[in-house]
Amino acid sequence: MDPSKKYTAIHYHSYLELDKILGAQVPRSGKFEENPAHDETLFIIMHQVYELWFKQIIHEIESVCDMFRDEKLNEENINLAVLRLKRVSEILELVIKQIFVMETLTPLDFLDFRHYLFPASGFQSLQFRVIESMMGLREEDRLTYNRHSYKIVFTEEQKEKLTKIENGGSLFELIEDWLERIPFLKFEDFNFLESYKSAVEKMLSDEEAAISATEYLSPKMKNMRLTMLGSTNTYFKQVLSEEAHAEMQKKGEVRLSYKATLAALLINLYREKPILTIPYNLLMEIMNIDELLTTWRYRHAQMVMRMIGNKVGTGGSSGHDYLAKTAEKHKIFKDLHNISSLLIPRSELPDLPIELEKQLSFYYSHNSR
Amino acid sequence: MDPSKKYTAIHYHSYLELDKILGAQVPRSGKFEENPAHDETLFIIMHQVYELWFKQIIHEIESVCDMFRDEKLNEENINLAVLRLKRVSEILELVIKQIFVMETLTPLDFLDFRHYLFPASGFQSLQFRVIESMMGLREEDRLTYNRHSYKIVFTEEQKEKLTKIENGGSLFELIEDWLERIPFLKFEDFNFLESYKSAVEKMLSDEEAAISATEYLSPKMKNMRLTMLGSTNTYFKQVLSEEAHAEMQKKGEVRLSYKATLAALLINLYREKPILTIPYNLLMEIMNIDELLTTWRYRHAQMVMRMIGNKVGTGGSSGHDYLAKTAEKHKIFKDLHNISSLLIPRSELPDLPIELEKQLSFYYSHNSR
Amino acid sequence: MDPSKKYTAIHYHSYLELDKILGAQVPRSGKFEENPAHDETLFIIMHQVYELWFKQIIHEIESVCDMFRDEKLNEENINLAVLRLKRVSEILELVIKQIFVMETLTPLDFLDFRHYLFPASGFQSLQFRVIESMMGLREEDRLTYNRHSYKIVFTEEQKEKLTKIENGGSLFELIEDWLERIPFLKFEDFNFLESYKSAVEKMLSDEEAAISATEYLSPKMKNMRLTMLGSTNTYFKQVLSEEAHAEMQKKGEVRLSYKATLAALLINLYREKPILTIPYNLLMEIMNIDELLTTWRYRHAQMVMRMIGNKVGTGGSSGHDYLAKTAEKHKIFKDLHNISSLLIPRSELPDLPIELEKQLSFYYSHNSR
Amino acid sequence: MDPSKKYTAIHYHSYLELDKILGAQVPRSGKFEENPAHDETLFIIMHQVYELWFKQIIHEIESVCDMFRDEKLNEENINLAVLRLKRVSEILELVIKQIFVMETLTPLDFLDFRHYLFPASGFQSLQFRVIESMMGLREEDRLTYNRHSYKIVFTEEQKEKLTKIENGGSLFELIEDWLERIPFLKFEDFNFLESYKSAVEKMLSDEEAAISATEYLSPKMKNMRLTMLGSTNTYFKQVLSEEAHAEMQKKGEVRLSYKATLAALLINLYREKPILTIPYNLLMEIMNIDELLTTWRYRHAQMVMRMIGNKVGTGGSSGHDYLAKTAEKHKIFKDLHNISSLLIPRSELPDLPIELEKQLSFYYSHNSR
Repeated sequence: MDPSKKYTAIHYHSYLELDKILGAQVPRSGKFEENPAHDETLFIIMHQVYELWFKQIIHEIESVCDMFRDEKLNEENINLAVLRLKRVSEILELVIKQIFVMETLTPLDFLDFRHYLFPASGFQSLQFRVIESMMGLREEDRLTYNRHSYKIVFTEEQKEKLTKIENGGSLFELIEDWLERIPFLKFEDFNFLESYKSAVEKMLSDEEAAISATEYLSPKMKNMRLTMLGSTNTYFKQVLSEEAHAEMQKKGEVRLSYKATLAALLINLYREKPILTIPYNLLMEIMNIDELLTTWRYRHAQMVMRMIGNKVGTGGSSGHDYLAKTAEKHKIFKDLHNISSLLIPRSELPDLPIELEKQLSFYYSHNSR
Repeated sequence: MDPSKKYTAIHYHSYLELDKILGAQVPRSGKFEENPAHDETLFIIMHQVYELWFKQIIHEIESVCDMFRDEKLNEENINLAVLRLKRVSEILELVIKQIFVMETLTPLDFLDFRHYLFPASGFQSLQFRVIESMMGLREEDRLTYNRHSYKIVFTEEQKEKLTKIENGGSLFELIEDWLERIPFLKFEDFNFLESYKSAVEKMLSDEEAAISATEYLSPKMKNMRLTMLGSTNTYFKQVLSEEAHAEMQKKGEVRLSYKATLAALLINLYREKPILTIPYNLLMEIMNIDELLTTWRYRHAQMVMRMIGNKVGTGGSSGHDYLAKTAEKHKIFKDLHNISSLLIPRSELPDLPIELEKQLSFYYSHNSR
Repeated sequence: MDPSKKYTAIHYHSYLELDKILGAQVPRSGKFEENPAHDETLFIIMHQVYELWFKQIIHEIESVCDMFRDEKLNEENINLAVLRLKRVSEILELVIKQIFVMETLTPLDFLDFRHYLFPASGFQSLQFRVIESMMGLREEDRLTYNRHSYKIVFTEEQKEKLTKIENGGSLFELIEDWLERIPFLKFEDFNFLESYKSAVEKMLSDEEAAISATEYLSPKMKNMRLTMLGSTNTYFKQVLSEEAHAEMQKKGEVRLSYKATLAALLINLYREKPILTIPYNLLMEIMNIDELLTTWRYRHAQMVMRMIGNKVGTGGSSGHDYLAKTAEKHKIFKDLHNISSLLIPRSELPDLPIELEKQLSFYYSHNSR
Repeated sequence: MDPSKKYTAIHYHSYLELDKILGAQVPRSGKFEENPAHDETLFIIMHQVYELWFKQIIHEIESVCDMFRDEKLNEENINLAVLRLKRVSEILELVIKQIFVMETLTPLDFLDFRHYLFPASGFQSLQFRVIESMMGLREEDRLTYNRHSYKIVFTEEQKEKLTKIENGGSLFELIEDWLERIPFLKFEDFNFLESYKSAVEKMLSDEEAAISATEYLSPKMKNMRLTMLGSTNTYFKQVLSEEAHAEMQKKGEVRLSYKATLAALLINLYREKPILTIPYNLLMEIMNIDELLTTWRYRHAQMVMRMIGNKVGTGGSSGHDYLAKTAEKHKIFKDLHNISSLLIPRSELPDLPIELEKQLSFYYSHNSR
């Protein structure tokens, strides 16, 4: 292409296709009544803005998935994924705050045009479903929709698109694969799992001894603490057994593979090592997004409650109740959030072999100093 | 008092008692270890800030309750209550946003000092319980706490304080009383309930006729809409019957009295009338606060999940699960939120008698023009 | 129109015109390079969202202006204006927060496509100029743009549109007119201005006496306070003189008419009176919007600084400096903000005649009780 | 210390020293009037919360400064500094949002107790001055305060504390030192400055040729673009000359040393290299804080304007004007913000020698693969 062409002048208005964008608000009430309902414009623009942000979110998550699909991915470019996911978080925070704008539409004002919208409904937002599926929500994880698949509201073409995403490797699966490939779980004489288990045991038995010895607790208190310690012990043992884990996976209580869980634990415990800092940031950002999506669903459910109370939604769903239930149920990376249960204080962490320490750090520092 | 005394000079530092305020951070880890855990300061300050805001919230709600306890309350000073409740909303928004600061404390950093905190816990925040009780949460509405009363963590003196508040007339009860006293439900020949019922019936039968007649819906769709309409009809009938309402109250499905519910409905439907504008704003602000408290509990539960996963809280509660359940369960003004289900479009609203219109407006406009 | 037509089914996707909305992102870099710059999508969507919100803001302000143009406007429907302006504030808060999303685009990433945008620029946003003009910013109030009118970047048609708005009566002028029509400045024997002036004088002389008498201030402090009091006195005198006000208007130091200023003062001082509550809320909301627009310009300037440093903007402006200067300069309702300087404590306020009190309250309360 | 002692039970109330914290609100109006002004509590709590957050900010910045003072600082622990500075940013965002709560105190309500506060003033907040000084604001950078040093309002002890901080090496100076020590500016045959200069020259002359050749621009436009290009060229030349830089330092136009500026430029341009990612994040966070402090000052000035208009502040300052001027003037890391002006597109960046690439990456990747 002729490089000089890039110097054709461009105007803000045409660059942003403002004729299209600002010409796309057509109130339904205006078709049937002399004066369109004043607030329908807000209702339309509000949702158009959501859809624009959803497009941007898809753009970012898709690019991150592509990076993790690429075999040439290495520690050196994961930071780019972190930055793009951080952008998704910022957008989600904004989108949640936008509910305050929505709430300036009062229930009574909504009634001025609500009857024209049937059966349109936010359940028909293809892009929001795409986001959830790309993140890793599977059809079987979803709350059924009046006993039907959530796909029932979509066209054949849209259904296919969703199915393709569901089968194509979600961010959940890509991250799981990547975690399983993380080195360092075994390194020469160092076996992370064994060291960690010993540390846990030592920590718990030290604590037990100290509690038994203390004179600063009433017998009742002492007992309570010792019982709590016992159950913590059981918990650790169960979680760290590969068989127990397989059992829990079968029952649907955990989803992330055993190996990936261990890798995530390693990253959390040794996140200060230079080579693990960015991977740690990555896991944090994914959890952030998961939590923000949950908050979004929750706030959205609250807003619907306020708008239509117990009524059935325009789309025929049970409205608020349905939405409120999806908030927690559609959370995707619960297993990452649960890693917190497995952490032990830094002071109890096993020291790493010097050679491993070196592997986890920068080239420069070990050669030039 | 000698009026000239008010001109004693005062300094920012002493006015704000900064010696006390800034001298009240004593990390527990500093007592047992050479170097206190860096992040414990954040943990302390974070909670102290919460408690300061809680004090302010109590100050505002208490003053509003006092206003509603006063027999001389009239339409002319309810606006002051609205402004104070709005302030509470602003504070709650801030307090919810503060969770983002809390989340900069990572689970691993928390472990550096968590073991020193036993059995201190947010469940021991007296002020938060006071806020909930003042708003109208009763002991029987609360989730039990390991099968005990939530009061178990408090001292005798604190328990008494809570009981006194629970028995002293909460905002819920004061608002209920005030709603019951609202005039205009019956005015000479005008009976609000009858007019409203007729309007609902007319609206539903018009809609039924239109749906039956339309050629723009498939038979399946037509059927679906008619069924929805039918259930709406049943809903209205049930809700507006005094007997059905009494039945629901007995079962604990509604709490607000029948008469207060009708008054709240009237205010919502005719909120444009000058004399009802401020009362409407009042109901809105109360719902706002109720919703923000719910969001706060929900976000707090999410944060705890992130911090300790499935572990038992320092206070011995089941942590995240307990908190998550309270979010919706401790919502207080559900009945006000449900008013939305009863609204009908303005175009269907019965006209008010001219004399009543006059009563609802300003003195000036009807005399001087 | 056939009423049954409103029951044609409508789908979310077509209702929101999502084909148009989501098909309007055409990265310039994609035309000239094999792979479009990843971040250009964000840049486009970000601005499209801004323009959608601007459209909504215009929709609201326009409707408020129409209300104030209508001769039938009365106290009874000003509350609707308040609610719509409140919505504008909520949108502006959101739009300001959106800058955090923009800041995830780093300067280096921006350079990947910045050279394709010439000479497009945010200065070409017609809608933002329309908002400012509708609010009341006049051509002569604006910072010149490289010594040209700000209109230089617009087409003839757009220029005409702006000129028409500038000549058509802005919100500033409509509010000024409405303030001038506010009754109660004189009421039978009550002359607001005279009562207020006496109250100011009494307040200042009481304070002077008390300061002189106090033994709790050092002579230096006493002197300082007395000097401050003196200048406050001068200030009040000057501001409340019609001639001084006319003088200041001529010099461009104030814009709001003398009579409107007094009415705004009255509303501020007696805002608790039922009939003045809503007018007070109206003035508050207008100041809110003015302040939020100022914050928006300021944050926008900061963001540009961060993005391109000292460089010239794509539109050829001096970038950050230009924008930073407009922040304060384009503030429109400075005179309303200045009312704060004229307030006196409630305890010093002159009592109103009983008959006037009655005029300021609701009809119902004085007849039925 | 006896380890079992850590098992003494602790209660939420005593841990947080709530007797002190919640007992420190003593309204001045309550001393002189029968009923204290209702809103003074808000005023007090608001400022106490600010001071608590300021203490936390100081705690974080101090710890970061200590890290940079430590000779053993290396790339491996800078990430901890980044995390702590990020926390400061979160706190500042909160503190800015808190102004919305402050704004629920209306000017008229403030007058109910304002006269009791003389001469207390936010200018007497020692901690805020400490934050500014620790960040790097020098006495000579500050706006004078009625022609006096800003220290005039402090006690001798407080003055000394400030002076000590000013002389003790601020974050600005520590970061400058650290930047100067960054390796890689020269590496064997690679000279960063020379490579960069050539890249700039090539970029500009390519662009000039393309503009001259294009047929898509009008002559006027072409001319405008070429002129802009010329001035960009001059700008680069001037900035990158060590002599010109020294000249600008002398005039006070820049503060950061020449070498540190180059290092910051290198970090910005090659931030994707693993060893530079964290340093880049560090610079970003510092700029964030600087920008948020600026926003805080600006919003604070706006709020004061709203509260007291043109009046003199309780502390005797010129109120709004003084504060508004400090917003930009007290910005500290302007030179880092200006780095944006020096960036060139990634596509124009000189390739690094392979050996240098290796030095910038992780040890593991170059040994194990």
